Amino acid sequence: MSVRSAAIGVDVGGTTVKGGIVAMSGEVLDRLEHPTEAQAATKTTIEVTEAAIARAQEMGYVPVAVGIGAAGFVDVLSGSVTFSPNLVYDDPDLADAVAARVNLPVMVDNDANAAAWGERAVGAAKGANNMALLVLGTGLGSGFVSNGRLVRGFTGAAAEFGHTVVDPAGPRCNCGLRGCIEQYVSGQAIARMAREAAQHNADTSMISFAGSADAITGYDVARAAREMDEVARDVLRTAGRMLGLAMSNVVNIFDPEVIVLGGRVVEAGEPFLGPARDELARLLSEQKRRPARLQLSALGRNAGIVGAAALAIDEMSRGGADRDPEREGR
Amino acid sequence: MSVRSAAIGVDVGGTTVKGGIVAMSGEVLDRLEHPTEAQAATKTTIEVTEAAIARAQEMGYVPVAVGIGAAGFVDVLSGSVTFSPNLVYDDPDLADAVAARVNLPVMVDNDANAAAWGERAVGAAKGANNMALLVLGTGLGSGFVSNGRLVRGFTGAAAEFGHTVVDPAGPRCNCGLRGCIEQYVSGQAIARMAREAAQHNADTSMISFAGSADAITGYDVARAAREMDEVARDVLRTAGRMLGLAMSNVVNIFDPEVIVLGGRVVEAGEPFLGPARDELARLLSEQKRRPARLQLSALGRNAGIVGAAALAIDEMSRGGADRDPEREGR
Repeated sequence: MSVRSAAIGVDVGGTTVKGGIVAMSGEVLDRLEHPTEAQAATKTTIEVTEAAIARAQEMGYVPVAVGIGAAGFVDVLSGSVTFSPNLVYDDPDLADAVAARVNLPVMVDNDANAAAWGERAVGAAKGANNMALLVLGTGLGSGFVSNGRLVRGFTGAAAEFGHTVVDPAGPRCNCGLRGCIEQYVSGQAIARMAREAAQHNADTSMISFAGSADAITGYDVARAAREMDEVARDVLRTAGRMLGLAMSNVVNIFDPEVIVLGGRVVEAGEPFLGPARDELARLLSEQKRRPARLQLSALGRNAGIVGAAALAIDEMSRGGADRDPEREGR
Repeated sequence: MSVRSAAIGVDVGGTTVKGGIVAMSGEVLDRLEHPTEAQAATKTTIEVTEAAIARAQEMGYVPVAVGIGAAGFVDVLSGSVTFSPNLVYDDPDLADAVAARVNLPVMVDNDANAAAWGERAVGAAKGANNMALLVLGTGLGSGFVSNGRLVRGFTGAAAEFGHTVVDPAGPRCNCGLRGCIEQYVSGQAIARMAREAAQHNADTSMISFAGSADAITGYDVARAAREMDEVARDVLRTAGRMLGLAMSNVVNIFDPEVIVLGGRVVEAGEPFLGPARDELARLLSEQKRRPARLQLSALGRNAGIVGAAALAIDEMSRGGADRDPEREGR
């Protein structure tokens, strides 16, 4: 009898916790998701993990490891969430809390790190030893691979590129700083810029889509831009150029073989991505740098679960070398 | 008879090329320097390397490898300088040009990478697997170690943190971009800001030190600040705060165990470093991040030669795994 192994990948976000049964090849065999409980992200994570394990067993797979990509700052050694601006973990010791309920090794990393590792393992940056992922969602997540390894830093709080400041006098960010690059390119930022623009341009179709200027969302901006609304296109052009600048900064720091762009905001398409690409090309050319290779995410919404599962598998096969020896026995 | 081995470390800068005879322990046994020939940095590098080898032999040491830290963008695989805004290499294939004259393995990297590796090998960040070096000289050089390895990127053009943009409408930088962080914290930037400030403040002692507002250098600013000149102190305070911001960006990207500050500009002391430290502490505290560990360079002007020598030794002992296999035989 051949035993088929699988890893469980879990992606903990502000709206939902997603779980996936992931084959050793990186293929997603099945997936499920629960809405994130408002004050209890850890509780939801445990529920999703248990449900995914049960589903894997029903499908005839033997789960061998659990990988979790969690929104927030993560101490990879302990598997704890140390800071999370956008959701509440009822138990911040996420790895311990999950491991106490499932009899499997549990690996926790930042959600964007997990997604970067997924794109690098089986996605748009497959095999690249130096790559960058920018995830344009509500905020701006990022993950970087340098010399074939994730850039996690001394305490696991690295790769928060969205919170690098590009204007010390800029808008206030959720993280406490002002003028973070996240405030110019994220879904939240685009909605804010669109609302501001609509105050001065009552004839934009964004207002009719949203009901009022104050209610405009990123989706309204994208829709209006597709219908050639000039106010919406101008907002996306401005945000896109800032994304180009952000990518120039990434190139000057990491010189990646490929930059992968993911997240819902990229669905705004050419009115956003065109100016980003043009601005990046212009800046690199000024510096006489080689052109950058840009890719859209190949794994899309599965990047987090695939990457978390891949991290857990790699961690197991490396014998947990990055882990705290105290925890090896659990 | 015991054979004493040494490595030759060479630091190629715009003003001088420095050579050092470096023991396997990292100790600098002797050093020499030649002024950099205006249009022929490669020629000067060869002269300094040959002189250092001869000196090592006179001292009874057997040179086993040459490491070169070169100002400019360096392709580590080929040992070539691909772009250098501040000096001219008569032969950009630096590793080949030097190796053709000395019968030793030659390793070339960016000068700030070499310095970072030196601080990490035997200096202020000894043993840190995640560290950052910022070198505040004419420009802003940087080197980063992540997971125990230098961040070099796909083509070796990473770690140009000085050319990350913090204001798209800011002053023009030598690299071609506008508003690079280098334009706010480097020696050149401080001199520019001081000249601007002196136009509006005729009573600053910087003018008497320099002869005229247009002639003010970084040294004049530092001297005037020591003598409590308020205009000079204000310039250094502004630059120091921007250095704090720059370090916050470094922390958000790399989460280093330690940030090492080097270069002549740090000699301006507390009027510059105090505001930098305060601003960094303020920004990290806003983000609820742990405080950063800051260190001044332990190797000072020797960081480049010690680091280049250490890189060459490490490269030899790793069997040149990072090198182009085509080049192994030379």
